[in-house]
Amino acid sequence: MRALVVDQAKPGRVALVADYPDPTPGPDEVLVRVDLAGICSTDLEILRGYMDYSGVLGHEFVGTVVRGSDALKRQRVVAEINCVGPGSAARDADARKHARDRTVLGIAGRDGAFAEYLVVPAENCHVVPNEVSDRQAVFTEPLAAACQVVKDHPVHADMRVAVLGTGRLGILCGQVLAARGCRLSVIGRNAVTLALCRRIGLPTQNVASLEPNADYDLAVECTGSADGLRLALQLVRPRGTIVLKSTYAQAADIDLSPIVIHEIVLAGNRCGPFPEALRLLRQSRVRVDEMVSGVFPLARAIEAFAAARDPQNLKILFEPGAS
Amino acid sequence: MRALVVDQAKPGRVALVADYPDPTPGPDEVLVRVDLAGICSTDLEILRGYMDYSGVLGHEFVGTVVRGSDALKRQRVVAEINCVGPGSAARDADARKHARDRTVLGIAGRDGAFAEYLVVPAENCHVVPNEVSDRQAVFTEPLAAACQVVKDHPVHADMRVAVLGTGRLGILCGQVLAARGCRLSVIGRNAVTLALCRRIGLPTQNVASLEPNADYDLAVECTGSADGLRLALQLVRPRGTIVLKSTYAQAADIDLSPIVIHEIVLAGNRCGPFPEALRLLRQSRVRVDEMVSGVFPLARAIEAFAAARDPQNLKILFEPGAS
Repeated sequence: MRALVVDQAKPGRVALVADYPDPTPGPDEVLVRVDLAGICSTDLEILRGYMDYSGVLGHEFVGTVVRGSDALKRQRVVAEINCVGPGSAARDADARKHARDRTVLGIAGRDGAFAEYLVVPAENCHVVPNEVSDRQAVFTEPLAAACQVVKDHPVHADMRVAVLGTGRLGILCGQVLAARGCRLSVIGRNAVTLALCRRIGLPTQNVASLEPNADYDLAVECTGSADGLRLALQLVRPRGTIVLKSTYAQAADIDLSPIVIHEIVLAGNRCGPFPEALRLLRQSRVRVDEMVSGVFPLARAIEAFAAARDPQNLKILFEPGAS
Repeated sequence: MRALVVDQAKPGRVALVADYPDPTPGPDEVLVRVDLAGICSTDLEILRGYMDYSGVLGHEFVGTVVRGSDALKRQRVVAEINCVGPGSAARDADARKHARDRTVLGIAGRDGAFAEYLVVPAENCHVVPNEVSDRQAVFTEPLAAACQVVKDHPVHADMRVAVLGTGRLGILCGQVLAARGCRLSVIGRNAVTLALCRRIGLPTQNVASLEPNADYDLAVECTGSADGLRLALQLVRPRGTIVLKSTYAQAADIDLSPIVIHEIVLAGNRCGPFPEALRLLRQSRVRVDEMVSGVFPLARAIEAFAAARDPQNLKILFEPGAS
């Protein structure tokens, strides 16, 4: 099959391999034909060496089960990315997320979704409701990650909440927070993505006109930059919370004394509940169609990754079945 | 009066001023004769420029009220360090700690305790019980800061808790955690202070023989060093908590990605409940006498600060009435 393969022995290189071995599902796994897959910032970091991962890239996808598990056969599915074997003690998604014996789709020890087919444990799969299109379903994984913010940090109507960053993850976090109800500001510097935020109903603020005043209860850092974290430290009130969503591939030179002086809580947060994400998509509580900036065949991977790096774009998709 | 005065116009300089103006209490303040005062790491940082503070240094003390407030007159007192005026909206210790209009004893905008006398708001004072000696009472402020750890992060008998650092604050945090009951390890590299920990009944571990295995529920970072935080990130389990106790005067080059990957919570924590600290001292639930490494008159300040910087020493005290 065709697959986009990263080889860390050749840094910065991803190659389209035309005859990558077809994957074979084990006893508790299913073989999935990938219908659409999405490029995430983590993929771009991996291309720069993050996680030292070699293998088929990609972890956001929607596909169709073609082999294994009668219950799932011919179903459209999405899948959680943290995988364990049948012998693992981790028996639910929360436990799998932090299991020491886990592999992670397209990130650690397990081939990912930028390919015609992939294999995933059956227990990781969620059937996509008919109301949700493929283009919407491919957002399930990052949307679930956004849902994890409010799972760990419940918000209420009176809370002032800032989302930093108007990229892929920032817009999804903003929409999840807006759906829950709070006094929200999505803060960014990019005129194009800020305008998109407003179009889909998110209250925005341009960082250029922002005067941080330590009055937010919660700030969700989605820029993945040290500057974003520095700004978050100025935005939250004493004893407020900053949620870190982005994996920082590099050490960041951050002055941590405000964390102590203002007794701020800095909480890492990743992956999240697929059922909740699918519910939000099915009930049209979040808008993702506007976030698709391009769809590419695997053969145009170089172009696709360049597009994904362009801050004017949001989600770039692969359609592995196209040529 | 005699006072140790920092002047940030002369970096690294602290001078004994023999004729510093006697302080005068305002309507809601008391004048306190300082009987003993303790040197804290924050004082040493201020001498290096931290907080850009100029004025009388020192914020840990026990003294005797000599003027103002009939209720407190002639009483032995200790005092919370965060002060507001009578018009402030902050009406309790928790609110004063983060009030924007606060001054902080010997740290920000208000003369401190390395002097013969100081003035503090009456509402900040706590009477020292007779069972508690001056030498013990002078530990109230840092012990209250240690109590804040368990106030924000309650522990229980089954929890694995690491305290990083066997300095002044580490030993106090260790004792507070031990008094609450948990599976504790106080981790350090200093043979002298590790031995003291064992003498006062704290379970210790030398960092040299430590193999971090991400299995602590809670780590309390009391080293104030980037290395301490890096180690804490290796010690705590996924979704565990790291409490940052020390103000970091410099930006630290820390890889923050483990916080996200393991969904770790990093929580700043400072100052704390004086009544709880006084209760622990009165009930002899913590031992502090062994922590006094030297007592100096103000005139020997240079020697005293050098002793406080020596990692073999723990608490260095000033006795402003001595000459």
